[in-house]
Amino acid sequence: MQKKQRTQAARLKGFRDYLPDAMAARVAMIDVIRREATLAGFQVIGTPALEYAVTLLGQGGDETDKQVYRFKDHGDREVALRFDLTVPFARFVAEHQNDLAFPFKKLQIGDVWRGENTQKGRYREFCQCDLDIIGVDGAAADVEILTVFQRILSALDVGGFTQAVGNRFILSALIRHLLRIEAGAGEASALIALDKLAKIGTEQVLGLLHAIPGADAGGSAALLSLLTSHDSAGHTDLGLIAAELKGDDVSLKEIDRLRFVVATAAAAAGAGPEGLRIDLTVARGLGYYTGIVFETTLTQKPGFGSISSGGRYNDLAGRFTSRDLPGVGGSIGLDRLLSALEEMERLKSHQVKPVFVAVATEDALGYAFELVGALRAAGIATDIGMVAKLGNQFKHADRLGAPLVVTVGGSEMQQRTFALKTMKDGTERRDLPASGVVEMVRTSLT
Amino acid sequence: MQKKQRTQAARLKGFRDYLPDAMAARVAMIDVIRREATLAGFQVIGTPALEYAVTLLGQGGDETDKQVYRFKDHGDREVALRFDLTVPFARFVAEHQNDLAFPFKKLQIGDVWRGENTQKGRYREFCQCDLDIIGVDGAAADVEILTVFQRILSALDVGGFTQAVGNRFILSALIRHLLRIEAGAGEASALIALDKLAKIGTEQVLGLLHAIPGADAGGSAALLSLLTSHDSAGHTDLGLIAAELKGDDVSLKEIDRLRFVVATAAAAAGAGPEGLRIDLTVARGLGYYTGIVFETTLTQKPGFGSISSGGRYNDLAGRFTSRDLPGVGGSIGLDRLLSALEEMERLKSHQVKPVFVAVATEDALGYAFELVGALRAAGIATDIGMVAKLGNQFKHADRLGAPLVVTVGGSEMQQRTFALKTMKDGTERRDLPASGVVEMVRTSLT
Repeated sequence: MQKKQRTQAARLKGFRDYLPDAMAARVAMIDVIRREATLAGFQVIGTPALEYAVTLLGQGGDETDKQVYRFKDHGDREVALRFDLTVPFARFVAEHQNDLAFPFKKLQIGDVWRGENTQKGRYREFCQCDLDIIGVDGAAADVEILTVFQRILSALDVGGFTQAVGNRFILSALIRHLLRIEAGAGEASALIALDKLAKIGTEQVLGLLHAIPGADAGGSAALLSLLTSHDSAGHTDLGLIAAELKGDDVSLKEIDRLRFVVATAAAAAGAGPEGLRIDLTVARGLGYYTGIVFETTLTQKPGFGSISSGGRYNDLAGRFTSRDLPGVGGSIGLDRLLSALEEMERLKSHQVKPVFVAVATEDALGYAFELVGALRAAGIATDIGMVAKLGNQFKHADRLGAPLVVTVGGSEMQQRTFALKTMKDGTERRDLPASGVVEMVRTSLT
Repeated sequence: MQKKQRTQAARLKGFRDYLPDAMAARVAMIDVIRREATLAGFQVIGTPALEYAVTLLGQGGDETDKQVYRFKDHGDREVALRFDLTVPFARFVAEHQNDLAFPFKKLQIGDVWRGENTQKGRYREFCQCDLDIIGVDGAAADVEILTVFQRILSALDVGGFTQAVGNRFILSALIRHLLRIEAGAGEASALIALDKLAKIGTEQVLGLLHAIPGADAGGSAALLSLLTSHDSAGHTDLGLIAAELKGDDVSLKEIDRLRFVVATAAAAAGAGPEGLRIDLTVARGLGYYTGIVFETTLTQKPGFGSISSGGRYNDLAGRFTSRDLPGVGGSIGLDRLLSALEEMERLKSHQVKPVFVAVATEDALGYAFELVGALRAAGIATDIGMVAKLGNQFKHADRLGAPLVVTVGGSEMQQRTFALKTMKDGTERRDLPASGVVEMVRTSLT
């Protein structure tokens, strides 16, 4: 045979293949998320992977823009692969606003792409699961979002986790009040600095706050001290913060709402403060948040960072439509969570181990398919021997983890019988009647 | 308020959004395919959307290469979006061959992208579902593939359908024999011509065959006459073809295998010749096929073309590895099938219609969430009122198609009761005890 020119079988760096084990776990997680979301009245939608570049760019900051995969398509249009699901969703809502019943609750599951630095252990393609409630501003929707993420994470069996809930409105008011600055660049710098608190610590954040032009130096320390205060239950001490913001009625109302939302969601989820906690240090960087913001960490893997986050944004689709569409939502990073579960050894095997029908002689193939068909029709996962030697078929059944092997050959076909081997202990029964194959296999499986 | 600069909310041409109704139908179809594939021992895998361009290009002919979305990534690598799942799967198999148990049966579901001419009603992003058995050549695997597609299409409830099964080995032998040409360009032209038979008819195909340099003119007519012959059951008359290929023992063996494979698969699927038919005119264009080839048409929509197709290819991964990896597989064009079902009005609604909990007074929100939580925990899809006015909540419940509305306000909270309205007939019961909410709702739903 002529020797061929070969291409190296190589994936792009930062991209993953999913082998059956990992894929089965991923699919099972998606099924759980879909089930819980559907139970809570969220409806699944989908948007394309590619959008006009102008739709996606300028929405997530310069750093994000740099990571977007963009190119010119066959019609010389500037197009880009979505880097999150939120921006395409904004476009979707604006485009289909007349076909949606608001408040609209949606689940969207899909891959997103970012040309990130892979040295940080980040992938360039990863799956996001986003839940949003759009078209309503109010405590009920805030509670509903926190509750559904509580339910999903519990159902995903991730072990202990903490949903830390802050509020960007209150945080911004406090920043402006204590640093004595106006809304604008200084406030943004403060938010970015506070977002790094868990990573770089109080000292360094103080340094960053001090460097903000016009910021009151004494205010920075007071700000950090208030934000990291705790009441007896472990929540940020909202009483201290309310006292500081006395006279700012809008902020005081937001404080009441935050208290109410977290208390109601905690009661609904049956979660204590270790599961659902008010934490005003949650800043969520720049983003588009205007109300509650939340982040979720795993008790066993706090260093893993947030596996689910979100918040309230009151101007989702304002770039596309004049309609007022406030929303609240959040996202689960499915692949990050999958990695975390793997590290925690909490990943159960979801691979199906089929019953295996071995074919001793080729003339019995039709008869074998008859038994296979009966088993599958009864909802029993069943594989069939497709290689020549019976010994190799058994070896394959073993590799697949088949609990039972049904064997048929020419004589079984004549007598309409089969042999049944239990792989665990090697016991085998022969001359069982074909008419009872479903019953016999079902009994032997339990 | 300052008027904002707005961006038009526009999708790229040839790309679709999935609204809840369509998405629910799509998700339900995917679930059916996954369930049936899993029952048959196929394992789900996944590969990235992006690959090195060199991996994808030159595999589907010049026409396909032109349609591939390709660009340079942030590291100046030539990358491309996959245009099918087969080529990435070949790369996957070569790369992971030591981690897979052969024969390896896989299901892969994913979007693919082609910059096609949208004027033909084609989409540039569409979902493929591929099932393949790799690492084995033999009748059993051929039967298994035909059987699993029969099971899937039946389970998808597409109505009547015909799987037409040809064989590329026999077809090529017959072309060379009757046109008196060697393997090569002439044979390829003949395959392409025959592939158009259903579209352009006998006369025009004859013209194309006559135009092949060196082809025997009389042979073309004989070829077409043999391929379109029928036996009493409606299959291509393999007896006539065997007589023509007398002395070509390899082809005769392939004829026996084709007969055996189709008969066995038909028996396993309980399908008559109208459901599973030998049809040697099935050519599948150029492709990489070396044995059976099949196409599937809907009885109600023959003009819709093939909704599922595939065949045997005995050198899937030869471009990447020296290992011999024969395979057989096929694909369902999910979005095409979805369109067909829509046109046939066979698309059932899969949207969940939740029970709705209305909140008459805001103080009862926590109590409402308690009932909502109990219902959801019992597996009953439940939505909650999130807008202020009770009347608007009922309007929304109606739009969602909620069969029942549970209403709670301050007094219900005090007494731990609720009201229950059946939306169909407008009947309402009051003062029902909260402790019986799951039981009461469940009974009222049936």
